Amino acid sequence: MDLIDHTHDPARRSWVQSANGHSEFPIQNLPFGVFKQGGRQRGGVAIGDQILDLDAALELGAFSGDVVDIARTASLDRLNKFMAMGKEASTSLRSALSELLSEHNPNAGKLTQALIPQSDASMQLPCDIGDFTDFLTSLPHTDRLGRLKGLAEPVPAAFKSLPVAYHGRSSTIRVNGTPVVRPTGQWRRADGKLVCAPVESLDYEVELGALIGRGNELAVPIPVGQAQQHIFGYCLVNDWSAKGIQWFEQILGPFLGKSFMTSVSPWVVTSQALVPFRSPARVRTDDDPTLFPYLVSEADLASGRLAVELSANLRTAAMREQGAPGRRVNVSDLQCMYWTFAQMLSHHTSNGCSLRAGDLLASGTLSGETPDSMACLSERTAGGTKPLDLGNGEVRGWLLDGDEVVIEGHAHKAGFVSIGFGSCGGVVKPALYKD
Amino acid sequence: MDLIDHTHDPARRSWVQSANGHSEFPIQNLPFGVFKQGGRQRGGVAIGDQILDLDAALELGAFSGDVVDIARTASLDRLNKFMAMGKEASTSLRSALSELLSEHNPNAGKLTQALIPQSDASMQLPCDIGDFTDFLTSLPHTDRLGRLKGLAEPVPAAFKSLPVAYHGRSSTIRVNGTPVVRPTGQWRRADGKLVCAPVESLDYEVELGALIGRGNELAVPIPVGQAQQHIFGYCLVNDWSAKGIQWFEQILGPFLGKSFMTSVSPWVVTSQALVPFRSPARVRTDDDPTLFPYLVSEADLASGRLAVELSANLRTAAMREQGAPGRRVNVSDLQCMYWTFAQMLSHHTSNGCSLRAGDLLASGTLSGETPDSMACLSERTAGGTKPLDLGNGEVRGWLLDGDEVVIEGHAHKAGFVSIGFGSCGGVVKPALYKD
Repeated sequence: MDLIDHTHDPARRSWVQSANGHSEFPIQNLPFGVFKQGGRQRGGVAIGDQILDLDAALELGAFSGDVVDIARTASLDRLNKFMAMGKEASTSLRSALSELLSEHNPNAGKLTQALIPQSDASMQLPCDIGDFTDFLTSLPHTDRLGRLKGLAEPVPAAFKSLPVAYHGRSSTIRVNGTPVVRPTGQWRRADGKLVCAPVESLDYEVELGALIGRGNELAVPIPVGQAQQHIFGYCLVNDWSAKGIQWFEQILGPFLGKSFMTSVSPWVVTSQALVPFRSPARVRTDDDPTLFPYLVSEADLASGRLAVELSANLRTAAMREQGAPGRRVNVSDLQCMYWTFAQMLSHHTSNGCSLRAGDLLASGTLSGETPDSMACLSERTAGGTKPLDLGNGEVRGWLLDGDEVVIEGHAHKAGFVSIGFGSCGGVVKPALYKD
Repeated sequence: MDLIDHTHDPARRSWVQSANGHSEFPIQNLPFGVFKQGGRQRGGVAIGDQILDLDAALELGAFSGDVVDIARTASLDRLNKFMAMGKEASTSLRSALSELLSEHNPNAGKLTQALIPQSDASMQLPCDIGDFTDFLTSLPHTDRLGRLKGLAEPVPAAFKSLPVAYHGRSSTIRVNGTPVVRPTGQWRRADGKLVCAPVESLDYEVELGALIGRGNELAVPIPVGQAQQHIFGYCLVNDWSAKGIQWFEQILGPFLGKSFMTSVSPWVVTSQALVPFRSPARVRTDDDPTLFPYLVSEADLASGRLAVELSANLRTAAMREQGAPGRRVNVSDLQCMYWTFAQMLSHHTSNGCSLRAGDLLASGTLSGETPDSMACLSERTAGGTKPLDLGNGEVRGWLLDGDEVVIEGHAHKAGFVSIGFGSCGGVVKPALYKD
């Protein structure tokens, strides 16, 4: 069980000055990632606007005891092996890093040699993502899109009995900053004619993703009460969607409408860093069906959600040319989640499906009840029919070429230092093929 | 373009005597696989009832020129790097292997040291399967299941305009011989009550899978005319299905109803070995919609299908106890495919989705028009309601614990030596969890 400890102490400050008061990466965060610098790819930790190069820190003899092996594993060119070591390992390394980066560390001077400015490094995918699963956990999102499609039953019966999900494409997951090329495909125009053309209804979807730490054997489910122990950490996810393609093709679920690209943020905020921000799961009402026992645990009910706020910023090409900032197009939080990540993970393995270190479980679009909390354009513009006013004379029904979408996430709770997830963004590029 | 050459010569015989007249692995086949023997996992080639150990053959100096590097790559513990080398490489190695294993090879005597009986080796997954995509390409299967579900439109409009597919789970793909554990999950009993229990409606699905060789870059589609050049080879696939779970959960496509396990055969029959068995694609009728150009190529129309026959054998625990053989429960062929593998592959990449060496593209259940050609129990028993008589006093609506299903596949054409795909099988084990 993850607990609040000295690494979360709000009074703790770092000798890396940019970390103190940093909106994303104060010493209370310490997210892991993989970066390339000087031609070499390796693991590091974000601290303020710097990266602590674990390899360099090992060279400097910064770690001792069991932590040496753990830090060495975390310094590899992918985090999978470190993730697979489990919670004890990541908790030990976090604790050691917190000491090393604390302003009270007498050896701080030497460690400055292990710092690399984030601006000098190129962030990579943190791990090999073997399988990517995307859930459907926001009730307002499900209900709203069901009504938009004119479904007789906007929220299907199964939605409240189990966490609905589909398998996503892992080969096209890319890290923050990778441009998204508008896909070409088959879709129906407003006049009903089927065309094969660059899709007009290009959308973003704001999601949070859990990355698996220690996995499970085939046929052996992970009980919901143990599920949190199998989540290494979290990242931001933008599930770019070609809605027209998705609507026409969808017989066995999303396929080409989603598989052209999914963006993730490069820094993995660990489960341990998020402990202070745990909050009670959604209270089930009398209208909700009784859950089967495999989806219920007292600990999960008490602290199964996270107090994380997510937003998306849309910056058009015109805004960039004018040097203007983008427009924040939505702010939502994880209160809209009908299911907790522990329930999603446990359900995922309930049939014996095995998860591997580095697998990604995304939340699905995290839309709340209000217009400002609608976390995709499909909802915000009612399927492109009610364009969003961007306030600078531009409107958007769907994303246009040149638009940049950047997702951010922050965990807040009174009495604790807020931590952030960094950025998950990309610019829309024109279609390569017109067929 | 793959061509018929000396490796397909029906007069060619091998000095490995068991290969001559072998129903699966004559010298005209030469499929690649990965096996474990003596504690080490490595690549090999099936010849009769033997495996040519590529590593041992390299040690013996069997290869020369460029083929040395190719054979070394094919001898690794996974075939991915070999597959990624592309068609030129696998054609060269096939040609060299055909010479080495030919009865006219003067150095055959020495090479016997590189042979390992298949019975002494444990076959492994041939490659890391990064992503697994399962298509829906049999029109009779789609139509029949649509009617069974009482759909107003049994064959959805999109089926004839594009190859429908869903992303499968890659972490639970297992090789021939791995038992399948009956999954527990949520499903509706006949009386409509939702239960969480071991699923009763356990099914097999007979499919053929294409394994990707050289992949493509993100955003750069593979034209249908070039698609065959990106298929390294083919294997058998059993898409075990928990139909009750699938029917209740399916909002965004199959998930837990499929993700508990998928079986594949260990030997990859190369595209080159199958050249003699290419046959014309399905002739589209006036009822079929006109295809968009990205799905049409002359070469694919002329030779886009394979003359492969597939069958499943069901052997119950009682049959095994009595020493009786199983019952062949279906025989179908690839004539039921509405789409060719080239069309499926090209469509898959048409939105810019990237494929990687080792990715699996499966056909979906290959059912034909007749009862005997129905390639799953869902169809054969009308959703379990009309049990199949196994001829020994036993009947099956769905699979029971102890049942073993083994899929086989053979390519036949007059004037050529038939080749086979080996086996793809597994025994059903009782559920581990009752909720």
